Amino acid sequence: MDTLPAGGRTRVTRLPYRQVHDRRVLHAVLDAGLVAHVGVVRDGVPVILPVGYARDGDSLLLHGSTGGGLFRQAAAGAPVTVTVTLLDGLVYARSLFDSSMNYRCAMVIGMATPVTGPDKLAALRLLSEHLMPGRWSEVREPTARELAATLVLRVPLAEASVKLRAEGAGGEPDDGESRAVWAGVLPLGTVAGEPEPDPDVPAGVPVPASLDRARQRHPGA
Amino acid sequence: MDTLPAGGRTRVTRLPYRQVHDRRVLHAVLDAGLVAHVGVVRDGVPVILPVGYARDGDSLLLHGSTGGGLFRQAAAGAPVTVTVTLLDGLVYARSLFDSSMNYRCAMVIGMATPVTGPDKLAALRLLSEHLMPGRWSEVREPTARELAATLVLRVPLAEASVKLRAEGAGGEPDDGESRAVWAGVLPLGTVAGEPEPDPDVPAGVPVPASLDRARQRHPGA
Repeated sequence: MDTLPAGGRTRVTRLPYRQVHDRRVLHAVLDAGLVAHVGVVRDGVPVILPVGYARDGDSLLLHGSTGGGLFRQAAAGAPVTVTVTLLDGLVYARSLFDSSMNYRCAMVIGMATPVTGPDKLAALRLLSEHLMPGRWSEVREPTARELAATLVLRVPLAEASVKLRAEGAGGEPDDGESRAVWAGVLPLGTVAGEPEPDPDVPAGVPVPASLDRARQRHPGA
Repeated sequence: MDTLPAGGRTRVTRLPYRQVHDRRVLHAVLDAGLVAHVGVVRDGVPVILPVGYARDGDSLLLHGSTGGGLFRQAAAGAPVTVTVTLLDGLVYARSLFDSSMNYRCAMVIGMATPVTGPDKLAALRLLSEHLMPGRWSEVREPTARELAATLVLRVPLAEASVKLRAEGAGGEPDDGESRAVWAGVLPLGTVAGEPEPDPDVPAGVPVPASLDRARQRHPGA
């Protein structure tokens, strides 16, 4: 098993039995999400914003703009933290204390480096294929001006932790709870709705294959 | 209109026209989410973790444990940042550059104070009613031991910003895109699946009303 580092800043202190050290699980969590919460420290306080991302082997690509303060700061060398959380369910135990959520969460800490040169187009394609699979080949390629206005940052998956809960309600058996109370899990998931075409889409232009792929990826709970 | 503060640390610098200053919108975003990404600075780097929360008037309640490092640090006076993001859709423009996501995002920065004394039970009830509406009255009350092991933090909504995108693909009309390409939005939303009872739920115990309420709240996209 390819294991993640166990100590230091990514050691889980609260409920450590929920930490997972298998790097394949880290990759699976990151591959299942679309938006990460990315933070940098500004004037001693975290600034945390949602960012579209994709995994590229053993690093993360973050998609932003040259005009974004958080991205400029990260590109200039501020350490970044990237957290991806997937909420999988609400756990209804027989006491509120034992109630919980099922989730998968990955946190990555690292230094970001801007992707430049010929790698940038490939990185954008990878981001596009993760966020909107199949869309790249349905539209024109990015222009030089668009490439220049886009900032792609790469963060290595060197310092990363994964924590997850994926089980039933359980709970302590002799804790005063009534056995007559229902206990279990309400699964939650992301689902795609009906596509909403822009008003200027000409009659007869069908919904493209990329949307079908996205809908298959978000079937619900 | 009750407006949010416009300057300082919560001023949106990237695409500032997407910033919303109506406090009611802030409340609506916070009320629609379940999990916030909460960050504190540790050794110069943000630590960002998912946390269940609820809004209590013009403050946020964060639900954690006395054993959690992030919560201990926040309770001890470290400034916290709380970001709640709702991903509402993928925006398929006719170029990748104009493609985007529809989202609602609120970021709150502040000092957290632990909720203690008789307020703590009321705060836990409010958290419970937000995360699992109706469940409080289906199970026994928390015990003194459980109350002592739970940490509830209050963060005022004094310094907060909201940014959102809620529109079609649009895009610049003379940017080389083909009009024959479909453009529009694929809505995304959270949906609840079929309840999964624990194996020890006796036969004949029905799925409780709280789960029906939760399913109604998560109908999908």
